Amino acid sequence: MAGNSIGTLFRVTSFGESHGIAIGAIVDGCPPGLELSEADLQGDLDRRRPGTSRFTTARREADEVKILSGVFNGKTTGTSIGLLIENTDQRSRDYSDIAEVFRPGHADYSYHHKYGNRDYRGGGRSSARETAMRVAAGAIAKKYLHAKFGVEVRACVDQLGPICAEQIQWDQVNQNPFFFADSDKLDQLDQYMRDLKKEGDSVGAKVFVEATNVPVGLGEPVFDRLDADLAHALMGINAAKAVAIGDGFDCVAQKGSVHRDEMHPNGFASNHAGGVLGGISSGQPITASVAFKPTSSITVPGKSINTSGESIEMITKGRHDPCVGIRAVPIVEAMVAIVLLDHLLRHRGQNHDVVVATPELSMQP
Amino acid sequence: MAGNSIGTLFRVTSFGESHGIAIGAIVDGCPPGLELSEADLQGDLDRRRPGTSRFTTARREADEVKILSGVFNGKTTGTSIGLLIENTDQRSRDYSDIAEVFRPGHADYSYHHKYGNRDYRGGGRSSARETAMRVAAGAIAKKYLHAKFGVEVRACVDQLGPICAEQIQWDQVNQNPFFFADSDKLDQLDQYMRDLKKEGDSVGAKVFVEATNVPVGLGEPVFDRLDADLAHALMGINAAKAVAIGDGFDCVAQKGSVHRDEMHPNGFASNHAGGVLGGISSGQPITASVAFKPTSSITVPGKSINTSGESIEMITKGRHDPCVGIRAVPIVEAMVAIVLLDHLLRHRGQNHDVVVATPELSMQP
Amino acid sequence: MAGNSIGTLFRVTSFGESHGIAIGAIVDGCPPGLELSEADLQGDLDRRRPGTSRFTTARREADEVKILSGVFNGKTTGTSIGLLIENTDQRSRDYSDIAEVFRPGHADYSYHHKYGNRDYRGGGRSSARETAMRVAAGAIAKKYLHAKFGVEVRACVDQLGPICAEQIQWDQVNQNPFFFADSDKLDQLDQYMRDLKKEGDSVGAKVFVEATNVPVGLGEPVFDRLDADLAHALMGINAAKAVAIGDGFDCVAQKGSVHRDEMHPNGFASNHAGGVLGGISSGQPITASVAFKPTSSITVPGKSINTSGESIEMITKGRHDPCVGIRAVPIVEAMVAIVLLDHLLRHRGQNHDVVVATPELSMQP
Amino acid sequence: MAGNSIGTLFRVTSFGESHGIAIGAIVDGCPPGLELSEADLQGDLDRRRPGTSRFTTARREADEVKILSGVFNGKTTGTSIGLLIENTDQRSRDYSDIAEVFRPGHADYSYHHKYGNRDYRGGGRSSARETAMRVAAGAIAKKYLHAKFGVEVRACVDQLGPICAEQIQWDQVNQNPFFFADSDKLDQLDQYMRDLKKEGDSVGAKVFVEATNVPVGLGEPVFDRLDADLAHALMGINAAKAVAIGDGFDCVAQKGSVHRDEMHPNGFASNHAGGVLGGISSGQPITASVAFKPTSSITVPGKSINTSGESIEMITKGRHDPCVGIRAVPIVEAMVAIVLLDHLLRHRGQNHDVVVATPELSMQP
Repeated sequence: MAGNSIGTLFRVTSFGESHGIAIGAIVDGCPPGLELSEADLQGDLDRRRPGTSRFTTARREADEVKILSGVFNGKTTGTSIGLLIENTDQRSRDYSDIAEVFRPGHADYSYHHKYGNRDYRGGGRSSARETAMRVAAGAIAKKYLHAKFGVEVRACVDQLGPICAEQIQWDQVNQNPFFFADSDKLDQLDQYMRDLKKEGDSVGAKVFVEATNVPVGLGEPVFDRLDADLAHALMGINAAKAVAIGDGFDCVAQKGSVHRDEMHPNGFASNHAGGVLGGISSGQPITASVAFKPTSSITVPGKSINTSGESIEMITKGRHDPCVGIRAVPIVEAMVAIVLLDHLLRHRGQNHDVVVATPELSMQP
Repeated sequence: MAGNSIGTLFRVTSFGESHGIAIGAIVDGCPPGLELSEADLQGDLDRRRPGTSRFTTARREADEVKILSGVFNGKTTGTSIGLLIENTDQRSRDYSDIAEVFRPGHADYSYHHKYGNRDYRGGGRSSARETAMRVAAGAIAKKYLHAKFGVEVRACVDQLGPICAEQIQWDQVNQNPFFFADSDKLDQLDQYMRDLKKEGDSVGAKVFVEATNVPVGLGEPVFDRLDADLAHALMGINAAKAVAIGDGFDCVAQKGSVHRDEMHPNGFASNHAGGVLGGISSGQPITASVAFKPTSSITVPGKSINTSGESIEMITKGRHDPCVGIRAVPIVEAMVAIVLLDHLLRHRGQNHDVVVATPELSMQP
Repeated sequence: MAGNSIGTLFRVTSFGESHGIAIGAIVDGCPPGLELSEADLQGDLDRRRPGTSRFTTARREADEVKILSGVFNGKTTGTSIGLLIENTDQRSRDYSDIAEVFRPGHADYSYHHKYGNRDYRGGGRSSARETAMRVAAGAIAKKYLHAKFGVEVRACVDQLGPICAEQIQWDQVNQNPFFFADSDKLDQLDQYMRDLKKEGDSVGAKVFVEATNVPVGLGEPVFDRLDADLAHALMGINAAKAVAIGDGFDCVAQKGSVHRDEMHPNGFASNHAGGVLGGISSGQPITASVAFKPTSSITVPGKSINTSGESIEMITKGRHDPCVGIRAVPIVEAMVAIVLLDHLLRHRGQNHDVVVATPELSMQP
Repeated sequence: MAGNSIGTLFRVTSFGESHGIAIGAIVDGCPPGLELSEADLQGDLDRRRPGTSRFTTARREADEVKILSGVFNGKTTGTSIGLLIENTDQRSRDYSDIAEVFRPGHADYSYHHKYGNRDYRGGGRSSARETAMRVAAGAIAKKYLHAKFGVEVRACVDQLGPICAEQIQWDQVNQNPFFFADSDKLDQLDQYMRDLKKEGDSVGAKVFVEATNVPVGLGEPVFDRLDADLAHALMGINAAKAVAIGDGFDCVAQKGSVHRDEMHPNGFASNHAGGVLGGISSGQPITASVAFKPTSSITVPGKSINTSGESIEMITKGRHDPCVGIRAVPIVEAMVAIVLLDHLLRHRGQNHDVVVATPELSMQP
């Protein structure tokens, strides 16, 4: 229990169910003096928001966040920041059909056994609805990191089902409804998603994230390494099944002479490491990938059991994303920003000057 | 700073450098009444120990662990357990050749910038030497989990460089020096490693780990999910670059109708999820994979810089494993056991009876 | 920073300023299955609420708490509980008179130097307004402790300025506006408070708290002792300046033959220890006392400085309690309940049955 | 469980029983670059050490601490510091006489019920033997605080049984075996202690502690206030029963016009607050008092029960301090230093310059 917080010095705690009155978060440890208003949070919330394209759930939430505390005269005060989003689109439909069944691939079964009393409406606490709060809190971290250190955190989908990006066009990512990295694949993607929708099926996705201009020295070995905390934060996103730093699983077949990033007076010659050496940021860009499983809410019939242990066949109706990985893009950015800011504050406590990586060092000649 | 602890209720804190006087750990929160002696820890320590085959470092450490506290009349008392291993094979050679250089791919560069004062002898704190303490602490967790709940945690190498296991023969894993899963590949492996040694190069590996008979209900969403904490613990092992739960990155190309594990009255029909649903154990076996990069300590010359920023070329001499992933096997088991026990205690605090998964439910028909 | 949480397994995190939009809290780790509604929280909130007598601040807040999550079908679900109280009586007066001054005895000076950007309206985050959230969260802990273990937590004022209670009449405490323990002193108290109000001065108070039927075994030495965590929680209440367990400072002049509580087959013969031995509950009643300083918001003129460092003389106008110790009574109960429940859950994680003290053992013959 | 750590960024974790092989600690989070050797720790250890006068226990321990890690080239490296003291004077006497009884006033009863398996030899983990590790860890914190910020932490006994100091002569405290503040009372004290020894009884004591030159801004409201964390750390010392900050319980009878510390351009006019306003250090000296109960190990016979619940009469033989409060003096200093350094690092993480209080502001004209 008590697992709804993340971070040590910059700590986010959240509450709220899919079909409850509201969702909210407390952001504790944001340094004082940062200019902050709701508008700073709304942009990322809108990117995550459902109902923005025909390939995300049709649920319509305004997702208007309110800052209830911690900001005075337009700037953070250093005290805890209360955030709230009211749930406006809770269709008061009858949920009795899913109250007594365990949808395959969902958290129904494990929540039932863990807690006994389970809010089954729309997935309750296990719904991705709570990730709106991660995005809101992450937007604060992103703003601080950028304003004070020039850190940029950005993510994209670089694989969706069988379709792989062959290039990363950062300027295109926010221009397409899939946050896809490669605009040459958009037609193919569009067709694939249409077909998928017809089938009533869903598909997985891979999200790539990069943080640039990260100061050297972030990470607290041997257990609270930067990469370990990133893995914790990213694997903790709904539907995440794998996390890779730098070359990730490709390292398995690499030789040491290939993998190690050589160094020159003007910087690293490569970035197989993904910006982390020995659990500590090296000043190179932090790079990571996250695998998202296909959502289990599909209309293809599946076998399951009910709470009495009897066999049933079910389809999951309702408004669901055929690919939850798409909307995960701003969530991934948020989690990375939260971890980076937390580690930046921890590192700074040590009284070492926080050294912003020189452009030379992060350059890859 | 203060990153040398892991766990909330079962918490392990460690200290020690590669070439210091000793390494040690404090295991805090082990429930009382568990029969425990040094012999329970030594088995796994011997599996991790260097010098046991020609394919691991030639450094010879007895790695004899002493239990300094927390055990009385042969049983744990519930108070903190002090563990100590003296470093016996610290060759007092001259380290001045690496004092002022940053070995490519090592933590030298990031430690230097983070801390300023860096113990460069044998990698200091960034050496995998500290993982002996993880193994010792993990052996305690493994024993408790097994004695009280019948949980088994076991790992193996299922890929080493280009060589992939095609089957998992658990009874063969501890019979070969590679902890390799597939005994049919041992000749091939042996030849590959010989060649690698001649080249002076190193290679990556993938470790697969499985925990069976895990009670349902472990994991504390939304941030302290079981899979998130496993990812944290596994990515925090030296040289780890990626962590997958269940099907991991394979999910990206899967459809929902394939990925979701259907349920029958006598159990789950598959285990794509890797035993975790919504961040909570489902009673299925927990399965995970970890990618380990090739060690950077190789005799193939590489470009780097020294602490004055000047270009140098260097080779890393000394006693090094050509594949650090091999010895990671008992470390992976240890980290999984530590996380599982911590979550078991957290879950039990909630006063829900800890339900051991029925054989039926963990069975895959 | 990030100091707005308390507890490990039962964890309360709060936000909100005196004159902000709302105050709120997240209660994380409440076990599932507890019947809970707003009505369970409102009783204690009403006891703490300002404006209930002429001796507390005239500020009028409905203090109506909303439960935003974590309860389903009338019972807790084990997920985080969001609590919210809107601030309804924020007089929009001009605060420019206190914006640039440091009121003596207040947190103005220390907040200014710590944070730079300080919400000076009504004390901002340093106002006791936030304690409403402690009371709401504590009411949940009290309900669980009582429902599942029969634990009772109750507090009273047993000294107010020079007036000391000579007896504790628990049935009288909630019958008088001072929560005073001894109804024989009420006339004297009433007169004292009238005089104080005329003087425009304030006064300190001592609150006594007792928890009965506390299971034996709560507390995690050597640092997270039960008494240490009680001291942390109680000293952390606004205006608290001292905390005593059992005989407290009277121990200094006691001899060992007097202080030690002898034991008989039917229980302890005395309770000088206050129910804690070696940092662990003994099954005797937990007893503690807390000293509250007089509020510094008085109309007696005082010397201070402004933010430019210039000498000023000031009086603190506004709606203030002449004795903040009075309204601290439900807050003290709340903090004790929060600590007890947190420790109960931590202890239960250890798999020892939680043993409820027998009536015999808590009896003092 | 898992209660053997204290601190967030500067964290101390300890292990060890009275009659075990060794006691030890891990100090995690000490900033790098601090000159440190065993000699820096030995001074305070010698002050705490038993056997130094006829009024402390006759147990003779060399208490020679070894630093096992975290120091390189004479300076801290920022990695975790392993500390070890071997127990040399574990008389291997027969403990069967106390194995089955609960000594009144001791932790025997509560440990037995909490853990089941209790190391009864010399009190096991509940013995004050573990405080040697607090002193060693605290010495590191003291050195850093003094070297980098000029902070001084010093304590003394200012009441022992009925004998109260009437002045604090800091230069006399370490010149007498009682660490007593007032050298005019030494003859009286000496006689009192002789009589007490003859009686076979023990007595309580009050320790006063002061930290000067503490930067303004330390403390993280609303729960991790500086005074709350001091209370936690001080109440967590063996035998502590009460903690006061500044005027403590005297506040109860004070009026606001007396208690509030007025401010002048050249500083505070008084220090009733004890250097903490709103949970944050004000730059004034931090002052606190701790009450220590009389040790329960006395030769005056007392009633108790055995583990079968039968009535017994017992006397506690062995080598025991008649007043444990005396040797608590360096422990109190250590705990205050640990808390101050932890908060200093937390505050510094916020990127506010740590402002050392000006002499003017800490002066009391």
